[in-house]
Amino acid sequence: MTVLEERIRTDGVVSGEVLKVNSFLNHQMDIELFNEMGREFYRLFGDEGVTKLLTIEASGIGIACIAAQYFHTPVVFAKKNRSTNLSGDLLVTKVASFTHGTSYDVVVERAFLTPEDRVLLIDDFLANGAALAGLADLVRQAGATLVGAGVAIEKAFQPGGARLRESGLRVEALARIQRMRDGRIEFCSE
Amino acid sequence: MTVLEERIRTDGVVSGEVLKVNSFLNHQMDIELFNEMGREFYRLFGDEGVTKLLTIEASGIGIACIAAQYFHTPVVFAKKNRSTNLSGDLLVTKVASFTHGTSYDVVVERAFLTPEDRVLLIDDFLANGAALAGLADLVRQAGATLVGAGVAIEKAFQPGGARLRESGLRVEALARIQRMRDGRIEFCSE
Repeated sequence: MTVLEERIRTDGVVSGEVLKVNSFLNHQMDIELFNEMGREFYRLFGDEGVTKLLTIEASGIGIACIAAQYFHTPVVFAKKNRSTNLSGDLLVTKVASFTHGTSYDVVVERAFLTPEDRVLLIDDFLANGAALAGLADLVRQAGATLVGAGVAIEKAFQPGGARLRESGLRVEALARIQRMRDGRIEFCSE
Repeated sequence: MTVLEERIRTDGVVSGEVLKVNSFLNHQMDIELFNEMGREFYRLFGDEGVTKLLTIEASGIGIACIAAQYFHTPVVFAKKNRSTNLSGDLLVTKVASFTHGTSYDVVVERAFLTPEDRVLLIDDFLANGAALAGLADLVRQAGATLVGAGVAIEKAFQPGGARLRESGLRVEALARIQRMRDGRIEFCSE
């Protein structure tokens, strides 16, 4: 998706293997860009009968909410750790955090993912794939149908995307980064 | 806002002083309802020259992103605790959590709140007002103009709303709960 790639090149900040897109994607959020991303997710997955978008707090929520306007579905966001506001029957999975070197529980109330649901996962970043694998596990536990995953940015030089696709999941990334070197970004599309 | 009050009465679950609106507001999210809320926030604050919506992770993000489509502004969400993805010059404030009996840092990169900004705070709940007071403090630290706060649900029987209004902040709540008794909800509008 050219518009996102151009934005990453213009406003992304590369430092080693870290790509900061804080100014438009996951701290300050450009809602017009999110609308273009939402339209593109719908172009890719619009014929899949999606009934629900599933994301994980916090930075996936904005993208998923804007995208949901094209799908006309609710959004469910999985919570990190059990909150006192959650109760009843919970779906729980464990996600390893490479960033923080720990692992944490990811939780969804069972009532919001049912066997009738056709679920599209949405997130901002795909690198090691741990968050998406956790969300996919929650969908499986719910007995729902997993339609695929739409992510804004994939770091294709990290193993998450390949692993998820090998597992049979359809993964669509709007911008796929081949490598980052000396502060320069190369996209797979180039 | 009648449509939100009706939805709370239909789908909210009261247990003591806890109101669960997980099925449409802060776990599963009804994006059509969010659009009605966004339009209402714009009706209330649309003539204030708002340049930025500021919310706090996680459950304010969806509401703010949908509302931003009416204001044509970016959204910034404040992060709880310093993340490894934040760097540079940070605005930090401390927020007491009544739910968890602790306090935590709330952080925004200074680059995303400037003295030129006219900021509207957005959140899902107003009870003790600690989160909104923290966001207001970040706006002050940035030297930006604080236009007001728009919240979905105010528990008017808790002290946050009165305190914030006494401090001079314009606070608009789309549904104000007078009291909850025996599982029944009474709104201030009644």
